Amino acid sequence: MPLFNVNKPTNNPISAWTRGASRVLAKTRILELHGVMYSHPSRKAETEFSVIHTSDWVNVIATTPDRQLVLVKQFRYGIGAPSLEIPGGIIEEGEEPIQAGLRELQEETGFVGTHARVLGRVHPNPAIQNNRCYLVWVENVVRQSDVAWDEHEELEVITLPVDQAYALAHSGDITHSLVLNGLLLFMPHWLAMKAP
Amino acid sequence: MPLFNVNKPTNNPISAWTRGASRVLAKTRILELHGVMYSHPSRKAETEFSVIHTSDWVNVIATTPDRQLVLVKQFRYGIGAPSLEIPGGIIEEGEEPIQAGLRELQEETGFVGTHARVLGRVHPNPAIQNNRCYLVWVENVVRQSDVAWDEHEELEVITLPVDQAYALAHSGDITHSLVLNGLLLFMPHWLAMKAP
Repeated sequence: MPLFNVNKPTNNPISAWTRGASRVLAKTRILELHGVMYSHPSRKAETEFSVIHTSDWVNVIATTPDRQLVLVKQFRYGIGAPSLEIPGGIIEEGEEPIQAGLRELQEETGFVGTHARVLGRVHPNPAIQNNRCYLVWVENVVRQSDVAWDEHEELEVITLPVDQAYALAHSGDITHSLVLNGLLLFMPHWLAMKAP
Repeated sequence: MPLFNVNKPTNNPISAWTRGASRVLAKTRILELHGVMYSHPSRKAETEFSVIHTSDWVNVIATTPDRQLVLVKQFRYGIGAPSLEIPGGIIEEGEEPIQAGLRELQEETGFVGTHARVLGRVHPNPAIQNNRCYLVWVENVVRQSDVAWDEHEELEVITLPVDQAYALAHSGDITHSLVLNGLLLFMPHWLAMKAP
């Protein structure tokens, strides 16, 4: 329950802005940048906002029977540097999040698991992106196949005790926002697994 | 320590890709979309990757003397819907992250605090964005001023017991990736505050 509200009475609760015309500003292999007009119901001006349209994504918390977490290290073009992450990728057209998660896990790492569930669904950036990222947990994964990297992938696969992965998150060695989301959403399950 | 590694010996550890030419594909008020050429040192082709250039951001965990968390609800253009978040925004040129966090907190909510520290620094998306987001914790905040929203802002300010905010994260009612990062990085401090 709100303890107080600083909005003027007329603005309480917040308004839904009205969506106007949109145009494609740029289109690349993986995203489209749109300019979308929005206007506030009680304000005059219509303004163009940047909205990145892209596929939904999936990131995978994969735990081994001996309670290690599967991590991948890869070069990331956005920051021009390597990044330590959990496996993940794009949910293809027609795929369910769990199906996509199991596929990405196997393609990137060769690990296969039997039980999978959706831990949650987040917005990578609701201010400027339209897409969602699903966090999927796959239990009892074992390495059963070769990797099948796409042409722009090259990964190092690492398994670490789960608590060590949390330590790397808090020490700043895991920095990918969506990977950290996976660790947050997995925490209640991890605490339950660890409980005596 | 890696327990095993699926890379071929020649690819272990992963390579740093070589950055080539870049071009601006689109430019908006808040970001630039670049096409950046990268080539793998042991592969032939050079490929263009999408990289979104934008400012560094700050998100603020603001706790009141009675251990409530300050939240803001606002309409988000990327998803075309309201989103429950912590205060935050762009780190302006020349600003330190803490300074930017205190400014955004006051502008968006009217809350002012005395003690502030950086909880951590994350990459919103190292695959396709070059920027960082700082998570700042401000303690003992009290409402001292009017809000100063920019022309595209309209926020509802809410304070909630910290544990209730964690519950909203796990129930899927807080979905902003970077807000969830703030909650993850704040957790050790929150557990210490709660400890008898």
